[in-house]
Amino acid sequence: MKSLKIYKVGGQILNDLKLLDQFLIDFSLIKGYKILVHGGGAHANILLSKLGITPKMINGRRITDIQTLDVLVSLYAGLINKKLVVKLQKLGCNTLGLSGCDGNSIKGNKRLFQDVDFGYVGDVISKSINVNFVKLIILNNIIPVFCAIIHDGNGVLLNTNADTIAGTLAQALAVNFNVQLYYCFDKIGVLKDINDDKSFLPIINKKIFYSLLEKKLIHSGMIPKLENAFLVLEKGVKNVFLQHPKNINSEIYTEVK
Amino acid sequence: MKSLKIYKVGGQILNDLKLLDQFLIDFSLIKGYKILVHGGGAHANILLSKLGITPKMINGRRITDIQTLDVLVSLYAGLINKKLVVKLQKLGCNTLGLSGCDGNSIKGNKRLFQDVDFGYVGDVISKSINVNFVKLIILNNIIPVFCAIIHDGNGVLLNTNADTIAGTLAQALAVNFNVQLYYCFDKIGVLKDINDDKSFLPIINKKIFYSLLEKKLIHSGMIPKLENAFLVLEKGVKNVFLQHPKNINSEIYTEVK
Repeated sequence: MKSLKIYKVGGQILNDLKLLDQFLIDFSLIKGYKILVHGGGAHANILLSKLGITPKMINGRRITDIQTLDVLVSLYAGLINKKLVVKLQKLGCNTLGLSGCDGNSIKGNKRLFQDVDFGYVGDVISKSINVNFVKLIILNNIIPVFCAIIHDGNGVLLNTNADTIAGTLAQALAVNFNVQLYYCFDKIGVLKDINDDKSFLPIINKKIFYSLLEKKLIHSGMIPKLENAFLVLEKGVKNVFLQHPKNINSEIYTEVK
Repeated sequence: MKSLKIYKVGGQILNDLKLLDQFLIDFSLIKGYKILVHGGGAHANILLSKLGITPKMINGRRITDIQTLDVLVSLYAGLINKKLVVKLQKLGCNTLGLSGCDGNSIKGNKRLFQDVDFGYVGDVISKSINVNFVKLIILNNIIPVFCAIIHDGNGVLLNTNADTIAGTLAQALAVNFNVQLYYCFDKIGVLKDINDDKSFLPIINKKIFYSLLEKKLIHSGMIPKLENAFLVLEKGVKNVFLQHPKNINSEIYTEVK
């Protein structure tokens, strides 16, 4: 099987033009099949506030009403996605910007809770990934650039989590490719002390994870990333790495085993 | 050669949800290969004004500064494009939303004038149409949905005219398909009296066009549409029609000969 590298970058890279441009150069130099998945970043709250839409949060989670959704779709599937695509085209990467409705590539269900309606937020349906479509694009040497907007198949767009999009794509494509999944974020990898790059762990496995968890040495934002990483490894993804976007052309990363 | 139908709809259809939904149902029922090209509509000025960006016009033409461009890309390549795609997915049409940077499908040059800098406005380069990419999509029974945002190949997005996008795609694809181009707009066809649907002409050719022009019986907005239609017919497009979007499943149209 051929190799496929999937890179997920968060929103923060989009707020740092120098970091972004260097990342895109490095990404353009990576050989073989690849996919880019991107989050949203701080743009959304700025734009929502300019438009007089107060971000509604419950327990730290955004409530996505229809006005908010329209702004997120405009930004994520529009401005941010096309900026990444156009910059990569300049670098000679033939990229194709996608949201989950495009080519019916990723479907999800609107999230329902007993107590809280989170609005237009979706949970990806793993089996909904349109592998044939994504393969068609990749095998024609076109690089998909996914945002985290998906659809429910019933005419409704949904906002979801870019980490989950990357993980679910990785799982679904593991049948056809040796998939390496890179979660890029603002640290050089898993750190035992979040303020000390020297506490970096080159490898983490479940045993180390649970031991760190017990000692409360693991940052809350890292927990879902690692749980997701262990899950996709069980589902056939070959390797999962946690890495700073500035290091994607190096071997400075935490490998999840 | 197989037939390919290209439909261009203006922005105004996007402001009329009932008309839009009926149009999309009718579009979904059309057999064979097809492409949808859409304009922008009134959303842009509303959003620009909400954001405190005053639309700058010179001689009725928008000056697209970088702030304005960001809003147009967000709306056209983002919100409007994805709304069309997601609604068509619901209707069983496997659509793929595209701007010109996606798949490097359409390039243009930034428009330069001696006196006026119109900003990020592009003129489509006819020969830049990535026919292989568009064919790859169409022949896999995926329906491209193009907005009028293109790129210059050098990392810059440009706003352009949806009529021109439709005409240029039609020309480029005429080598591989029998192309029928449908310009959908707010009249049932060419009218000798703009206020009287009974003055409708089922056929127009250059002779009739110039005679109407001489008698000043042709509306100014119609002139570039017809000139464009005559041009693409010379370049190999099989048929060009001017039609109301409500009539796309009927033979109520003006055919340009």
